[in-house]
Amino acid sequence: MIIVLRPDATKEQIEHIVKKVESLGLKTMVSQGVERTIIGVIGKEDILQVQPLEIYPGVEKVMPVLAPYKLVSREFKPTDTIIEVKGVSIGSEKIVVMAGPCSIERYDLLLETARKVKSAGASILRGGAFKPRTSPYSFQGLGEEGLKYLKDVAEKVGMVTVTEIMDPRDLPLVERYADIIQIGARNMQNFNLLKEVGLSRKPVLLKRGMMSTIKELLMSAEYILSNGNFNVILCERGIRTFEESTRFTLDVSAVPVIKQLSHLPVIVDPSHAAGKWGLVPPLAQAAVAAGCDGLIVEVHPNPEEALSDGIQQLLPERFSEMMESLRKIAQAVGRKI
Amino acid sequence: MIIVLRPDATKEQIEHIVKKVESLGLKTMVSQGVERTIIGVIGKEDILQVQPLEIYPGVEKVMPVLAPYKLVSREFKPTDTIIEVKGVSIGSEKIVVMAGPCSIERYDLLLETARKVKSAGASILRGGAFKPRTSPYSFQGLGEEGLKYLKDVAEKVGMVTVTEIMDPRDLPLVERYADIIQIGARNMQNFNLLKEVGLSRKPVLLKRGMMSTIKELLMSAEYILSNGNFNVILCERGIRTFEESTRFTLDVSAVPVIKQLSHLPVIVDPSHAAGKWGLVPPLAQAAVAAGCDGLIVEVHPNPEEALSDGIQQLLPERFSEMMESLRKIAQAVGRKI
Amino acid sequence: MIIVLRPDATKEQIEHIVKKVESLGLKTMVSQGVERTIIGVIGKEDILQVQPLEIYPGVEKVMPVLAPYKLVSREFKPTDTIIEVKGVSIGSEKIVVMAGPCSIERYDLLLETARKVKSAGASILRGGAFKPRTSPYSFQGLGEEGLKYLKDVAEKVGMVTVTEIMDPRDLPLVERYADIIQIGARNMQNFNLLKEVGLSRKPVLLKRGMMSTIKELLMSAEYILSNGNFNVILCERGIRTFEESTRFTLDVSAVPVIKQLSHLPVIVDPSHAAGKWGLVPPLAQAAVAAGCDGLIVEVHPNPEEALSDGIQQLLPERFSEMMESLRKIAQAVGRKI
Amino acid sequence: MIIVLRPDATKEQIEHIVKKVESLGLKTMVSQGVERTIIGVIGKEDILQVQPLEIYPGVEKVMPVLAPYKLVSREFKPTDTIIEVKGVSIGSEKIVVMAGPCSIERYDLLLETARKVKSAGASILRGGAFKPRTSPYSFQGLGEEGLKYLKDVAEKVGMVTVTEIMDPRDLPLVERYADIIQIGARNMQNFNLLKEVGLSRKPVLLKRGMMSTIKELLMSAEYILSNGNFNVILCERGIRTFEESTRFTLDVSAVPVIKQLSHLPVIVDPSHAAGKWGLVPPLAQAAVAAGCDGLIVEVHPNPEEALSDGIQQLLPERFSEMMESLRKIAQAVGRKI
Repeated sequence: MIIVLRPDATKEQIEHIVKKVESLGLKTMVSQGVERTIIGVIGKEDILQVQPLEIYPGVEKVMPVLAPYKLVSREFKPTDTIIEVKGVSIGSEKIVVMAGPCSIERYDLLLETARKVKSAGASILRGGAFKPRTSPYSFQGLGEEGLKYLKDVAEKVGMVTVTEIMDPRDLPLVERYADIIQIGARNMQNFNLLKEVGLSRKPVLLKRGMMSTIKELLMSAEYILSNGNFNVILCERGIRTFEESTRFTLDVSAVPVIKQLSHLPVIVDPSHAAGKWGLVPPLAQAAVAAGCDGLIVEVHPNPEEALSDGIQQLLPERFSEMMESLRKIAQAVGRKI
Repeated sequence: MIIVLRPDATKEQIEHIVKKVESLGLKTMVSQGVERTIIGVIGKEDILQVQPLEIYPGVEKVMPVLAPYKLVSREFKPTDTIIEVKGVSIGSEKIVVMAGPCSIERYDLLLETARKVKSAGASILRGGAFKPRTSPYSFQGLGEEGLKYLKDVAEKVGMVTVTEIMDPRDLPLVERYADIIQIGARNMQNFNLLKEVGLSRKPVLLKRGMMSTIKELLMSAEYILSNGNFNVILCERGIRTFEESTRFTLDVSAVPVIKQLSHLPVIVDPSHAAGKWGLVPPLAQAAVAAGCDGLIVEVHPNPEEALSDGIQQLLPERFSEMMESLRKIAQAVGRKI
Repeated sequence: MIIVLRPDATKEQIEHIVKKVESLGLKTMVSQGVERTIIGVIGKEDILQVQPLEIYPGVEKVMPVLAPYKLVSREFKPTDTIIEVKGVSIGSEKIVVMAGPCSIERYDLLLETARKVKSAGASILRGGAFKPRTSPYSFQGLGEEGLKYLKDVAEKVGMVTVTEIMDPRDLPLVERYADIIQIGARNMQNFNLLKEVGLSRKPVLLKRGMMSTIKELLMSAEYILSNGNFNVILCERGIRTFEESTRFTLDVSAVPVIKQLSHLPVIVDPSHAAGKWGLVPPLAQAAVAAGCDGLIVEVHPNPEEALSDGIQQLLPERFSEMMESLRKIAQAVGRKI
Repeated sequence: MIIVLRPDATKEQIEHIVKKVESLGLKTMVSQGVERTIIGVIGKEDILQVQPLEIYPGVEKVMPVLAPYKLVSREFKPTDTIIEVKGVSIGSEKIVVMAGPCSIERYDLLLETARKVKSAGASILRGGAFKPRTSPYSFQGLGEEGLKYLKDVAEKVGMVTVTEIMDPRDLPLVERYADIIQIGARNMQNFNLLKEVGLSRKPVLLKRGMMSTIKELLMSAEYILSNGNFNVILCERGIRTFEESTRFTLDVSAVPVIKQLSHLPVIVDPSHAAGKWGLVPPLAQAAVAAGCDGLIVEVHPNPEEALSDGIQQLLPERFSEMMESLRKIAQAVGRKI
């Protein structure tokens, strides 16, 4: 931590700050520059991160030296984390593809979708039973019935499952049916939900909030790891910007940035970022080329009748074509799919 | 709803869309322009809002004519909603001021703060017992103990209380102790929590998410109203932008915009927007001048020792001074404080 | 400047950096912390600001201690700058109001507008002769003819004038007719234009870019001051965010923030921020309450027929009403209007 | 154009609007819905785009049906535009790579860089002689001397050149030395400069402003085309968002979006988007996988000594490695490099 003093800071003010910092068991190093005096703090910086040093008289600004996260950082664990779920590895050489409908709507539709995405190369089946909808008047999901369909279809077809949880009270239910628990973008800072899934033994797919920095995403993952669950998959799904031609702006740079900062696997959701099915293949291609460990894609056999997000769901045939091109790109960057 | 067709839309595609729309009980009106054909839809537009018409072959874009919210709209209820809580009116001529510490930390500190903000003119005591913190290593709040302090102090001093809820499981607890239930910015789209407080009989203070549009804020309020609770206070607290000199950017325009669109009272939180106590008075002044119905301000008698948000909490004396200037501005715009 | 080293930085890397820094005539101070070693640099920091120290092997990040601007800073000049133009003071106790049509369209319309805004209390007449329009097919301004109208009307009515320049080649022309030269938001980083007006002896009204930080605004002003022209008025006119209910988001916090950082006067343009005339009065009120030194407002006697920005121009009668309420708010914050 | 009326619009108001619209030579079609009456306008929509219909009494909102650009649209010209410059095709199957230093600094450095990037596969040499710098105290470029080096080196090595223009007065100079004229991001809405290069016969590389929507980029290109110069190359170079881990956020979706909307070639600048050389290769890979027609990359043989943007310039060896991986990705998406 570096404390930069105002040009008019008095000797008393400096002593007051030094005393405070040292009372916390840290050492200080005062350095008089030409235009500013600064106080360097030596010791465990996190002790200071909760101290409002900016308001001490004489302080101009405070600059942290270290990142605020620990367990998720590559400094804490230099090697890539690989998560194993029923024979599927996430974070390894093989890029993992999660696919399925936005919402679970009917058993037969889900089964049809699962068979098709599996044969195209997807290994994880996605589908929502609890749906976070902007409008209270939109379809809110089938709940437990949907979870049953998901589990049953996945077992029949031979896939691993991922589904979203929205409420900490639903954890036992979701754990009973799903293999991977998803925290949606709107709940990335629902800290009680994060703590709850931190106590679970199921892997967690944590989506970046549309309004959240990469640092905040890592801090939210830190909530899960610090509660004991190290199996966290991070997901970039588009951030909100001023651009209106896409639903969100896919921050493809987040992939290499997160890979530098953290050991956790990173996947990309091109469907929610684009908001239009026609843009899903180029964005998925970009994500693989940028080095992601996986994709999560919405696929629906009849998007015209979908109960949610029909606009962005791919037809199974288009998904198959996309998988073909992804296979070539994966190979071009030394990966498999 | 207006459906704009692509220049190359075929007769069959147009008929397919018309048939679909009419099968939902709506009427259509096809109008051939010079460069585009459009289909106007007559009838209850909300039936169509869940239909992914954009993906129908031949469709270029779909433009809704109506806003997606109802109960919160001024069209539904033209007169201002005034919320009464134990003798305090929110949404009336008198601008209501909520003040108190960020977190409830100690009984004596809270009591001292309450006495001071009350004597300066605040009528509602704020204080967090459950704290949404970006870092799992930060102070998370005193929980029920904090709620007890809040209720006890408020009764002693003669104030109404507001406190944040983060978990639907805590509703009975929070209802027992607090007069107004706050939904924080990070939970604005925690839809299960919204539904839960929609079933409560306590008024709800709903904060705008830092990256949520005004329309989304109104849709989240619609969740609460549509579940039966019409006592919702909206709160602008700063949005996330590229500007870094403040913690968030106070969207002061939100005040008159929301007053046009909705009948619900609108208050402003200058403390979280600014992120620095020195900016709180000018922002509070701007909010009152723009027509807000209230303010929620963080005040702490010893910010250097605060366990959260020390940087943005006002000293009680500064709060008193600010109230003086707000009183004059309120008068200038035909209000009281 | 603080240079934070990577945890794996070698002794040779540290020496390489130290040598480089000292070769520039600066002193270094290496401080070994628990988790990071840092190098503090003592001396003129601006020498280093052009050095890409981040790419030196072993460097994790570089943190500047000082702001990059000088002449515009309050540290350089602690007292408020007051700009005098033909008897009008900008930056003093009296809040200055600039008003007039978006574009200069016809002599009689301009004269009518000038008379009305003057009688309502405006002292500076605005009007564009060169218009920056998003579309090449929109009205581009009357050019020199418009400038003549502006000068002539202002002299007739007894007002000072401000008008926008878009091209460095037009400076002699604009200087001949106008009292204050405006740099529009889209040209805030048109550095050649900034240098050119820096050589002028006319005051410059510099508008903040819609996506520029306050720091960048101050750096653009620094271009003008460092070329010799110290009479710069800064203008907040709304920034681009994700919110769509207003044309831009008025960053009202910019007013107190700039007043802290700089000695230059700060005015606000509520018309372009709002993009709708109905929101102009509350935003103007907020701006005055937040401490601005002036306003620039679009007024048109017949907005239905305006050749540009008709939606956001106030009728003269509404402008007069607004001035009444602004007068009261100015008084409430210890100013005049 | 669809005009949506307020629920309380009177018959007189509707007639007033209809009369106005028809006076412009357009036809109207009034349609009474359940909750709103709307007026459809039939005819040349651009006539109305300059009319402030939103302020007519009784109007709630106005929704344009058509995009505001024409010449740049794929509707106007369905086939891809291919630009030929001295034997190099831009917009064809082969992805074109522009590379070179940020600023032209010294003849020998430029020559060394040119030789290396050429042998790695770049066909166009980039280098700035006029530099838009945030700070007036930074290196501003060598001016004409730099242009001479650029032309001379390019001829020696056998490359085409691209360089930035900042001032309309410099056009004859830049035209004399360079093959492609670049408009930088900060000048994307410098409309006078756009008009000027619209009169040139040299191809123009138009960079998207960091604050500009894709629609605005297309409107700026429309300025150039409508002045007679159809050889425009569009460039995505990162937009400004709240994310701070990269200098800008590369909007990789812009590539497929622009390819849908326009016939003009689209290239990507990963260097300015990333702001750090380590992120340039993954972003370049993503851009190629998303379907771009070219890249512009900063390369410097000794970034530690670069006079601008040292942090984001690639070493020639790293550029060569990157070209290898891009070659494979280009092939995977059916292109060459």
